Amino acid sequence: MLGSTHGTLTTTSRPARVVGRGEHPRPGAHGLPDGALDLDVSGRPLCSPVPDLDRFFRPATVAVVGASDAPGRPNAGVTRQLVDWARHVGARVLPVHPTRASVLGLPCHPRVSDLPEPVDLAVLLVGDPLPVVEELADAKVAFAVAFASGFAETGAEGATAQARLAAAAARSGVRLLGPNTNLNAFEIFRDDLPGPAIALVTQSGHQGRPLFALQELGIRLSHWAPTGNEADLECADFISYFATRPEVGAVAAYVEGLKDGRSFLLAADRAARHRVPVVAVKVGRTEAGARTAASHTGKLTGADAVADAAMRQFGVIRVDGLDELQDTAALLARARPPRATGVAVCSISGGTGAHFADLATAAGLELPALSPAKQAELHRWIPEYLDVTNPVDSGGHPVGDRRGRKIIDALLADPAVGVLVCPITGPFPPLSDRLARDLVAAAEETDKLVCVVWGSPVGTEDAYRTTLLGSSRVATFRTFGNCVTAVRAWLDHHRFTTGYRSPFDDAPRTPSPSARKARELLRPGEQLSEHAAKQLLRAYGIRVAREQLVTSAAAAVRAAAQIGYPVVMKASGPQLAHKTELGLVRIGLTSASQVRDSYRELTDIARCEGLPLDGVLVCQLVGHGVEMVVGIAQDPLFGPTVTVGLGGRLVEVLRDTAVGVPPFGEDRARAMVAELRGRALLDGVRGAPPADVDALVETVLRVQRMALELSDGLTELDINPLVVLERGQGAVALDALAFCR
Amino acid sequence: MLGSTHGTLTTTSRPARVVGRGEHPRPGAHGLPDGALDLDVSGRPLCSPVPDLDRFFRPATVAVVGASDAPGRPNAGVTRQLVDWARHVGARVLPVHPTRASVLGLPCHPRVSDLPEPVDLAVLLVGDPLPVVEELADAKVAFAVAFASGFAETGAEGATAQARLAAAAARSGVRLLGPNTNLNAFEIFRDDLPGPAIALVTQSGHQGRPLFALQELGIRLSHWAPTGNEADLECADFISYFATRPEVGAVAAYVEGLKDGRSFLLAADRAARHRVPVVAVKVGRTEAGARTAASHTGKLTGADAVADAAMRQFGVIRVDGLDELQDTAALLARARPPRATGVAVCSISGGTGAHFADLATAAGLELPALSPAKQAELHRWIPEYLDVTNPVDSGGHPVGDRRGRKIIDALLADPAVGVLVCPITGPFPPLSDRLARDLVAAAEETDKLVCVVWGSPVGTEDAYRTTLLGSSRVATFRTFGNCVTAVRAWLDHHRFTTGYRSPFDDAPRTPSPSARKARELLRPGEQLSEHAAKQLLRAYGIRVAREQLVTSAAAAVRAAAQIGYPVVMKASGPQLAHKTELGLVRIGLTSASQVRDSYRELTDIARCEGLPLDGVLVCQLVGHGVEMVVGIAQDPLFGPTVTVGLGGRLVEVLRDTAVGVPPFGEDRARAMVAELRGRALLDGVRGAPPADVDALVETVLRVQRMALELSDGLTELDINPLVVLERGQGAVALDALAFCR
Repeated sequence: MLGSTHGTLTTTSRPARVVGRGEHPRPGAHGLPDGALDLDVSGRPLCSPVPDLDRFFRPATVAVVGASDAPGRPNAGVTRQLVDWARHVGARVLPVHPTRASVLGLPCHPRVSDLPEPVDLAVLLVGDPLPVVEELADAKVAFAVAFASGFAETGAEGATAQARLAAAAARSGVRLLGPNTNLNAFEIFRDDLPGPAIALVTQSGHQGRPLFALQELGIRLSHWAPTGNEADLECADFISYFATRPEVGAVAAYVEGLKDGRSFLLAADRAARHRVPVVAVKVGRTEAGARTAASHTGKLTGADAVADAAMRQFGVIRVDGLDELQDTAALLARARPPRATGVAVCSISGGTGAHFADLATAAGLELPALSPAKQAELHRWIPEYLDVTNPVDSGGHPVGDRRGRKIIDALLADPAVGVLVCPITGPFPPLSDRLARDLVAAAEETDKLVCVVWGSPVGTEDAYRTTLLGSSRVATFRTFGNCVTAVRAWLDHHRFTTGYRSPFDDAPRTPSPSARKARELLRPGEQLSEHAAKQLLRAYGIRVAREQLVTSAAAAVRAAAQIGYPVVMKASGPQLAHKTELGLVRIGLTSASQVRDSYRELTDIARCEGLPLDGVLVCQLVGHGVEMVVGIAQDPLFGPTVTVGLGGRLVEVLRDTAVGVPPFGEDRARAMVAELRGRALLDGVRGAPPADVDALVETVLRVQRMALELSDGLTELDINPLVVLERGQGAVALDALAFCR
Repeated sequence: MLGSTHGTLTTTSRPARVVGRGEHPRPGAHGLPDGALDLDVSGRPLCSPVPDLDRFFRPATVAVVGASDAPGRPNAGVTRQLVDWARHVGARVLPVHPTRASVLGLPCHPRVSDLPEPVDLAVLLVGDPLPVVEELADAKVAFAVAFASGFAETGAEGATAQARLAAAAARSGVRLLGPNTNLNAFEIFRDDLPGPAIALVTQSGHQGRPLFALQELGIRLSHWAPTGNEADLECADFISYFATRPEVGAVAAYVEGLKDGRSFLLAADRAARHRVPVVAVKVGRTEAGARTAASHTGKLTGADAVADAAMRQFGVIRVDGLDELQDTAALLARARPPRATGVAVCSISGGTGAHFADLATAAGLELPALSPAKQAELHRWIPEYLDVTNPVDSGGHPVGDRRGRKIIDALLADPAVGVLVCPITGPFPPLSDRLARDLVAAAEETDKLVCVVWGSPVGTEDAYRTTLLGSSRVATFRTFGNCVTAVRAWLDHHRFTTGYRSPFDDAPRTPSPSARKARELLRPGEQLSEHAAKQLLRAYGIRVAREQLVTSAAAAVRAAAQIGYPVVMKASGPQLAHKTELGLVRIGLTSASQVRDSYRELTDIARCEGLPLDGVLVCQLVGHGVEMVVGIAQDPLFGPTVTVGLGGRLVEVLRDTAVGVPPFGEDRARAMVAELRGRALLDGVRGAPPADVDALVETVLRVQRMALELSDGLTELDINPLVVLERGQGAVALDALAFCR
């Protein structure tokens, strides 16, 4: 069988296994015949086949290895559940047991290798799944599930056992779910609920439970993949699969760590192409969360800022709480595309409207002022003294009679309105019961979004339980906050997917001419000198301040004359960082004598400090601009990443940076700049001219290219500062630091 | 009767009315005999008597003006509710009706002036309450409630009518609730619920409804004050009163705008002194919210950052959603003071623990690692392979039998643990039902806090409805987010009140010697020249770079020689701002000829631009330090405020500032500096020495003194930059801008 570091490169007919985490193959080192896979210039895959998980979720045949019906045996309960589930999905169960002739009346086979026919799914109820997985080679089994725990979640020894299990599955040609998973995939879903469904993937069974319970509130669920330790099949496989299923309206994910960054990106990309929203809780905002998550299913969590950026780039909607996951996924699964982005708020109290408007506006929703004509129309049913600008204060009474429906319809008919939100903070049956019925009826007749917030903490009221939850067209929330979050996510999702162009389509596959030149400059295991680092930039067409490396005072004076006064002088050597602090930089030298003196002083300091120099740089003094930083770093999950931020001394203080996870296009590079808190500096502050943002964006893209092409040779790069000049004047790197692998 | 601009200055025996908003009396201008009130140096009150609201909430006699029992009349329903309520609280009802002899069998009086006895409370069910309020002068009525709307919430005309109503109430010596309010104060509260209660004050009846409904979840409520337009009695009066009531455990407030900043601060101060937590939703995060709130009850919302700072300073816990208001107020009302700040999390799934730990840590809660001995103890009941460091993963099964209680007790016995949180994401009755019972039983026997998150979206489960909500000792939440918010607020509240020292105790009452000197520099209606503004700083002992104002080139050269080279030169004049942009600043002049040339250039530019100068400043060049900004601004609600932030060009870009609302002490000034995102700059970045934060704090306090003492003369001050030198070296103002009233 073939090996690969990317589980997602495989198909069900020719599976390969993950053998390492965070290690990326060098070009040509992927162990596959050249051209067999579509790889980017860094050797990372540009596509990932979707496993044929139909056979997993809707199998025709299910082998239960370790089946039992002996009273009191834990496996007996599990077997019973599997048999019930198999009946529900129309699968035949083939129990496997070394000694029993039959289980629950079904004839047994002693070993998996004795199974008389191809099997879609083998459920392994045994304590040690390894020998069984090895045996599966002789059986024709497409998928297996291993419930057993005691693998990577327990530490290094368990991780080794897990790697053996994964390797055995690869050899046997079976795709494996688990280990350390559970029965959640074999829950019986309600099939009486209308509308598009939520498909669920979780790395913890318990954490998926409230999503599953949404069915009790009338929200349809179609799948649940509890991925456990992800020795083989991972979260990304299920997201990819769900994105192609017609019944799935949204994917909800509970993620503690990712097995592989690239496979996650490819899955998110597939979902974006299919316009299927993915909503995710991703643990790891803090060190504590990351550490605990690692000990739970033995996964890496990587840097949270990088995972966060990756999700944003590919349109994955990140939320913090399971309640937000439920409410956002439910809305995105069921709501049709927006007809307009305006939100109209209609409340039975001015206070409620004011409060909702405040939270909605703070979250970036637009509440357009209604036109005078629309306001006049509303005042046919709402007393004149009430404010109907938006939010609309109905005063309450009108919604208790036929006027309520008129108001609702008038708001939904407004072309500026794409969403109607009715927050019902406290139920008052004479008003709220009728309002709920009217909203449900109106929602049936519109393709706009109708939302209700049922604010009562009690939640047993009939208008809520029966009327509102009985409708699949009204989106019902319990809190203002979750309604605002979900509506915002819904609008964002459609904005994102409407303009989506996959960056994988444009990712470079072959090295540019720059790469060859640049590779010659790399020095394995070393930090490059400033001069060499700048040569690297030049190789990628990034402008660098004019400079000459000199090794004598006389040469320095000649260089200064050629470059033109005033000049900057800096010591240059392979181990130099923080040159300013060491006194190894002189700025604004205006004469030959100053240059001569500076040469002597710089070399003296370096000698005293024991710092070897390759010379002294005489550099052009670049005019005023905005000091930025652009760099490359490595993430254990996602590989090379590109950072842009405010430069200078404040970088370290304010950490005002944005991350891009390759591959990304110009739109993302521009968005990174826009995400900076200090972006206004680039617009020109206090009369300064606007800076050349295009040149900054171009530099970010060139650095990305470098990060990908030199992925195996360059670990870290920092251009700091990159001086972004006035618009049209470009950007100039004044200093650079580079570390080689 | 006496007039005052401060409603809260009054007592029930000698009431005064609010006649203006945002206007503060000058010293001696409060219309009261000198010394009758305790005022600070700016003329603002330093204490506010608590109205005797016992007579309002528990009256012996209630007059109902406009009482009716005529079928179909709206007042008939209201009268019936008031009669029921009066019976419940043991009050006698005295109906007032111009023609009826009796209402609901109770003898009527034709007019309020005919009432035969003193009345605690008059409820005005009339469309225009003004004539009735005027009549109340002849009746001995302590409190009145006006439901009628159509006042300040409708605009300028309504505001005038409201002012007339307030004035009439003042003349009649009655304290008035409303107008534009409702019956919420006369709800019948459940009296069978145990423990301390939530007292509620809302500026919107509908928005208080879910809090009132908490009683259905077993949480006790004691009062509800719906303050409406606050023509007289305001939110602050009720907070002050609730803070003194023994049955009140916490105050929950829904606030759209404040009538008066100072009265709110004094109420919050009283609550802090009594250690009664105040939890508030305050609308106005955004312009949209503020505008809508203003149109709802006709109140100002002021600058949100200022209100936010005011709340923080006085320990008011601000939350965004009504769900957070409910959950946080309920916890703070009922939980005892913390025994320790550590949070132990115990879950039946590792994923749940990781997720909760992530959110809790991100919110600043501490999850201390349990000691090896404690972990060993837990492993007596929890399998060895599960992580019990904290979060504790019980694996589930142990909580289904007697081991569950052992685990809970072991965690509660840990001295580092002050809070035990058990997140039950998905109910699984065999485990979660017993766990719920064990938690309830354990909570009865500990004085530590026991929290449960019941994560099921269904919420009709018996373990939740009966077991958990049946306990007043267990704090039950529905979401991780709200649990984390509430626990954090509870710890913060106790930390805050434990060290609380009221800044009103130390607020200056009489002007300092600086004030007299400073007043002479003020120029009504004008912007001061830089030189004059710096004199103002000097008067308050704030260090200013050495400088001389000169009016000839020769004088400039003499001044430079005295100050010592290098020097800075700046044009100085009454209308100058943005001098750098205009080219009116020269830095680092090192010779007499440079000084002479600069003098000519600066005066030439000013002449060309038509800017009158009072001269040119020759200033000391101050060494390296951290550039900060310290200033004074005016808020319509709170009066003068003090700002500190990062200075220089980045101020405008990053808006990294913190606000202090006087009066505040050194602790708050220090906290303001600590709130800055860029505070690390002051600690010393890239080898820079730590800056003199003490000197910065001292400057903030001197500026506060100036803000208070010159409250009637100085509207705005900006020290930018204030260069904070190395620790021990002080801080020096390099430039200042001042505007006079």
